[in-house]
Amino acid sequence: MVIQYQLEKKSQECSARVGTITTPHGTLKTPVFMAVGTQGTVKTLVKEELHEIGSEIILGNTYHLWNQPGHEIVKKAGGLHSFMNWDRSILTDSGGFQVFSLAKLRDIHEEGVYFKHHKSGKQLFLSPEISMEIQNALGSDIIMSFDECPPYPCTHEYMEKSVDRTLRWAKRCLDAHQNKERQGLFGIVQGGEFEDLRKYCAHELVKLSFDGYSIGGTSVGEPKEIQNQVLDWVVPILPEDKPRYLMGVGSPGAILDAIERGVDMFDCVLPTRIARHGTAMTSKGRVIIKNKEFEEDFTPLDMECDCYCCKNYTKAYLRHLFKANEMLGHRLLSIHNIRFLVHLTEEARKAILEDRFLSYKNEVYQKYGLNENDKDF
Amino acid sequence: MVIQYQLEKKSQECSARVGTITTPHGTLKTPVFMAVGTQGTVKTLVKEELHEIGSEIILGNTYHLWNQPGHEIVKKAGGLHSFMNWDRSILTDSGGFQVFSLAKLRDIHEEGVYFKHHKSGKQLFLSPEISMEIQNALGSDIIMSFDECPPYPCTHEYMEKSVDRTLRWAKRCLDAHQNKERQGLFGIVQGGEFEDLRKYCAHELVKLSFDGYSIGGTSVGEPKEIQNQVLDWVVPILPEDKPRYLMGVGSPGAILDAIERGVDMFDCVLPTRIARHGTAMTSKGRVIIKNKEFEEDFTPLDMECDCYCCKNYTKAYLRHLFKANEMLGHRLLSIHNIRFLVHLTEEARKAILEDRFLSYKNEVYQKYGLNENDKDF
Repeated sequence: MVIQYQLEKKSQECSARVGTITTPHGTLKTPVFMAVGTQGTVKTLVKEELHEIGSEIILGNTYHLWNQPGHEIVKKAGGLHSFMNWDRSILTDSGGFQVFSLAKLRDIHEEGVYFKHHKSGKQLFLSPEISMEIQNALGSDIIMSFDECPPYPCTHEYMEKSVDRTLRWAKRCLDAHQNKERQGLFGIVQGGEFEDLRKYCAHELVKLSFDGYSIGGTSVGEPKEIQNQVLDWVVPILPEDKPRYLMGVGSPGAILDAIERGVDMFDCVLPTRIARHGTAMTSKGRVIIKNKEFEEDFTPLDMECDCYCCKNYTKAYLRHLFKANEMLGHRLLSIHNIRFLVHLTEEARKAILEDRFLSYKNEVYQKYGLNENDKDF
Repeated sequence: MVIQYQLEKKSQECSARVGTITTPHGTLKTPVFMAVGTQGTVKTLVKEELHEIGSEIILGNTYHLWNQPGHEIVKKAGGLHSFMNWDRSILTDSGGFQVFSLAKLRDIHEEGVYFKHHKSGKQLFLSPEISMEIQNALGSDIIMSFDECPPYPCTHEYMEKSVDRTLRWAKRCLDAHQNKERQGLFGIVQGGEFEDLRKYCAHELVKLSFDGYSIGGTSVGEPKEIQNQVLDWVVPILPEDKPRYLMGVGSPGAILDAIERGVDMFDCVLPTRIARHGTAMTSKGRVIIKNKEFEEDFTPLDMECDCYCCKNYTKAYLRHLFKANEMLGHRLLSIHNIRFLVHLTEEARKAILEDRFLSYKNEVYQKYGLNENDKDF
């Protein structure tokens, strides 16, 4: 198998687990948070910074790279690793999520989806085969099957048809995938908020034997209890010897809830997106750095953080950068926020190994100053 | 003397010279190019990158830092070095240039200048004493006297009055400067395109005995021949044992022309400003990275460059970053362009030491593909 999952320990308290995933570009420890490099760059950052942050795997977006610079150019560059100068593992999504969240005038057929580009308006077509062709050209270590990601809420009737199509597309992806020796393919469990469809989809995908399993269609506006409920339905069905990836989830609370339920992998644009607007995640909750209270605060953003930003800069300076519209502010807060989530998963790992995950989770919740029902956490 | 200039060698071919300048934050080799950190940050970059580039001194802008975050806050942070996390030398300007280039509704009086902030429209007042107070609070190693920088062209009559006022202001700066043990003060030679006024201003400033001498009022739209002519008039008047700084000049050709005439120090926003728009300075001339010709060009920006950008990235990737509006492009091109100018002065230094400066200059001109009359060079 091109992607190997090694289970190291199962929690005695809950379904949490620690392990390692080996890809053609290295071994990474799970649970793991993956920073998102949408357009072939984790916004503002370079390789050495991501190494220092502890990033062992990052994400690229098929939809964006397909349109700019185009997968053929990335292929000619020797693949995405070489093109963007990244030497560790890369995971790419299938383009499916962007087609359903960004693109305009979708027209869904059995063969694939016709749609217009979200900016240029250009007419495009994406199918399981084309998604595989693009991801094969990008050469990412872990690739995703092309799925439909219906909106929330949606009827049981529609979701049932959609899940069946997603399953047929998953089979076509397995057939179309041309680089099985170097790239592992994950199947994506859909089914919305419906127990029967989630379980059905998971069972059917497991029969097809993917290199790992993703849980999609979450973080689309549904309440957090539903997200956790979906995990309670799906994760027990997934094989113990394969990685499990909850797509697009990046708030600290939701990550910890999912780790508790046995998920290994996470990604989200949240840390870099809120960094751009001057918001930091800290051990004591969110900090809006432009606030007047930080004008003469010459202490680091987070006293408990070991990142480059916290070791070298004060809140007063970071506030100044944002007040002055200096891009260095975005860069430093991106470093901090990604490190915050990578560190969160590192600490979760330690806690699971020492069978104190639930108390660790509790402690983080309390220090963040929020409760489990807070949607933003 | 807080600022020490040590002459190492005078060219046998021309007025070029090499030396060292020692400030409270280190010794730097001249000729030197100083990157501009207008608002307390060399846009997008951090200390370690500037070290790798070879930057031994950077510039901060009094006008901008006075308005945001305010010099009192920088002072409370322990000065600009501490505030922005920069451990080598800093030079600040006096605010005079911005008052005359950016601010609105100037009203010039003997006591100082009343004007409105270029963005907020706030009513402000700057004088020799206030400029010294701000620069003393910032704690930069080298500070500038507050001068009037008249537009080009301007009448001899106006310029004469302006030079006399600038000289009176220079004396007031010497009197007002409160931190002579830690900060060296440079006088600024004005006088426009008028030989008599330039020479008069230089002679009078030398009598006042500053720590170094700046040549101001250049790069304000005048032809390059005038800039060189001004240097031919002024530099021979300046003392051999003090540094000479040509303000705001950063095109490669103009730097080499000025080195030939005995100038030691340069600064300019050019490398970071054109980087933002995707233009690189290379040993073979300017490169507009968005051009279609680079779409599949997997070679570095400049084969002769040793910067981080050229060691790690291709033109095709850089083009992609600019096409995709990714800020990493600005960062990487800033690194490259600053390194280009720092390297240019490093090579000039070597060439002077080996008495081959004129042939070095000639070679750069030829490779850049331009001639001495090209304004942009």
